[in-house]
Amino acid sequence: MTLIECIPNFSEGRRPEVIDQIAAAVDGVDGVSLLDVQSDPTHNRCVITFVGHEEPIAEAAFRAIARAADLIDLNQHEGAHPRFGATDVCPFVPLRSEEMPVCVETAHRLAGRVAAELGIPAFLYEDAARMPEHANLTVIRGKGFEEMREVIGSQPAKTPDEGEARVHATAGAVAIGARFPLIAFNVNLDSDDLDLARRIAVEIREKDGGMKCVKAIGLRLDDGAVQVSMNLTDYRVTSMADVVEAIGRRAGAAGVAIRESEVVGLLPQDALVRLAQSALHATGFTRDQVLEARVLDTLL
Amino acid sequence: MTLIECIPNFSEGRRPEVIDQIAAAVDGVDGVSLLDVQSDPTHNRCVITFVGHEEPIAEAAFRAIARAADLIDLNQHEGAHPRFGATDVCPFVPLRSEEMPVCVETAHRLAGRVAAELGIPAFLYEDAARMPEHANLTVIRGKGFEEMREVIGSQPAKTPDEGEARVHATAGAVAIGARFPLIAFNVNLDSDDLDLARRIAVEIREKDGGMKCVKAIGLRLDDGAVQVSMNLTDYRVTSMADVVEAIGRRAGAAGVAIRESEVVGLLPQDALVRLAQSALHATGFTRDQVLEARVLDTLL
Repeated sequence: MTLIECIPNFSEGRRPEVIDQIAAAVDGVDGVSLLDVQSDPTHNRCVITFVGHEEPIAEAAFRAIARAADLIDLNQHEGAHPRFGATDVCPFVPLRSEEMPVCVETAHRLAGRVAAELGIPAFLYEDAARMPEHANLTVIRGKGFEEMREVIGSQPAKTPDEGEARVHATAGAVAIGARFPLIAFNVNLDSDDLDLARRIAVEIREKDGGMKCVKAIGLRLDDGAVQVSMNLTDYRVTSMADVVEAIGRRAGAAGVAIRESEVVGLLPQDALVRLAQSALHATGFTRDQVLEARVLDTLL
Repeated sequence: MTLIECIPNFSEGRRPEVIDQIAAAVDGVDGVSLLDVQSDPTHNRCVITFVGHEEPIAEAAFRAIARAADLIDLNQHEGAHPRFGATDVCPFVPLRSEEMPVCVETAHRLAGRVAAELGIPAFLYEDAARMPEHANLTVIRGKGFEEMREVIGSQPAKTPDEGEARVHATAGAVAIGARFPLIAFNVNLDSDDLDLARRIAVEIREKDGGMKCVKAIGLRLDDGAVQVSMNLTDYRVTSMADVVEAIGRRAGAAGVAIRESEVVGLLPQDALVRLAQSALHATGFTRDQVLEARVLDTLL
């Protein structure tokens, strides 16, 4: 069973009737489970999360992109978040790491179809990137629609992988990609020492020489306690258990204990299976031993 | 969503055509996922595992019990495992602990139906027991069909909860119950010291004053290493992490490390969620944050 998550972001966070129509396009595809719709009026952006096999999920993504192109005019759009498309980004995420190649293929096929049938130029990013200049989404997107309209085709980073070097007049461009699931994970300290949280964040994050695939900042919670707030971009490389251990050790050296940790949003079951493997030394443990995973297999 | 597991044991482990027909009776019920069929010729017994909501799972269990009564004659049955019914035991197991009351009700209703429609006396055991004498299955079952035929109704432990005090001429009786999921879990030591494994098993198991809800023995593996082999009868009370810690500490005191641990068969996702809660201090983490659990909710 190949189960893929798709988490497209659309440039509409204020008109519920538009968001509903895009979500309905997804929900209308047999074999796709619509899990979540979140919109942000300040960003004027919404995020739709759905899961399915590669065929229905690609169909649902295509229909949502087509519907967004019908309903959203970037010339009329403003919001705090950078964007260059009515559908701004459309990443496919494997629920199990061995499914990444399927996600990449799915992204490639969808990009071709979107360019050919909708006339929207498509950039392939992250694990689905064909050009090294396209690996990083923020480099592709730059300052967004208004800039891309002018510079598209002028350099590799601004040249679409599929479609002509011309933005769609109202729907702009789209970034279609594949990436590993990201886990938003926070560790709260039994302390009000913001410097400590910040220092630990700097020490453990990749960009300052810490642990790979960890982004971290230190911040203060409403109740006064401090938090190391993280994104784990590949839990196979650095797991939740790894960062808890690293933070606990550093906090402990300062005489501070971990109060609790929190997972923000969703995580794939695979992250729990790996936690069992490491925390219990259960090296041979697999997802097929989880009852609910077996039930899911019989239903999909 | 209420998801219940049912794991009936039937007194047939040698005739595949009979086992197939019983499994087919389960599989024919809409809304039931048939997960596993295992048979043991020596025990002359098979175990069928399936999962579903309370209504379809009760219907599937009833059909399987009816089919087994049609196809199995205990007067012709012999095997190494004690048994008193064509369907010998039929436990309902909650996949989340809050579902235990539903399992108990389901067991009660099924017992009434089996007695009324099939003429098979039913005993309610473990968490579904109405009489204290029925909590323990082995006390109810005693020496099996041949004994029960003689003593049924003679004392509380031998008096069915539903149906008359008379075994079914060919299908005997049935024990229908509700119980918490059991986790079969082994910890292998990096040692060939069988005495050490046995001593640790004695120290940690409940019956010798150790940890609650732990059954344990020490034994030697084929490769010469030794193992503490356990059944955890309530992972909420004593978890896999708890026994790994307890065994690791005792082995460490003898200069021995844990080589690896192994989960035998299936476990509910809830056991992994609780592992995350304890190992990561993620006290607020819930199953609804597991992507696959959310997908399952949309499908059931």
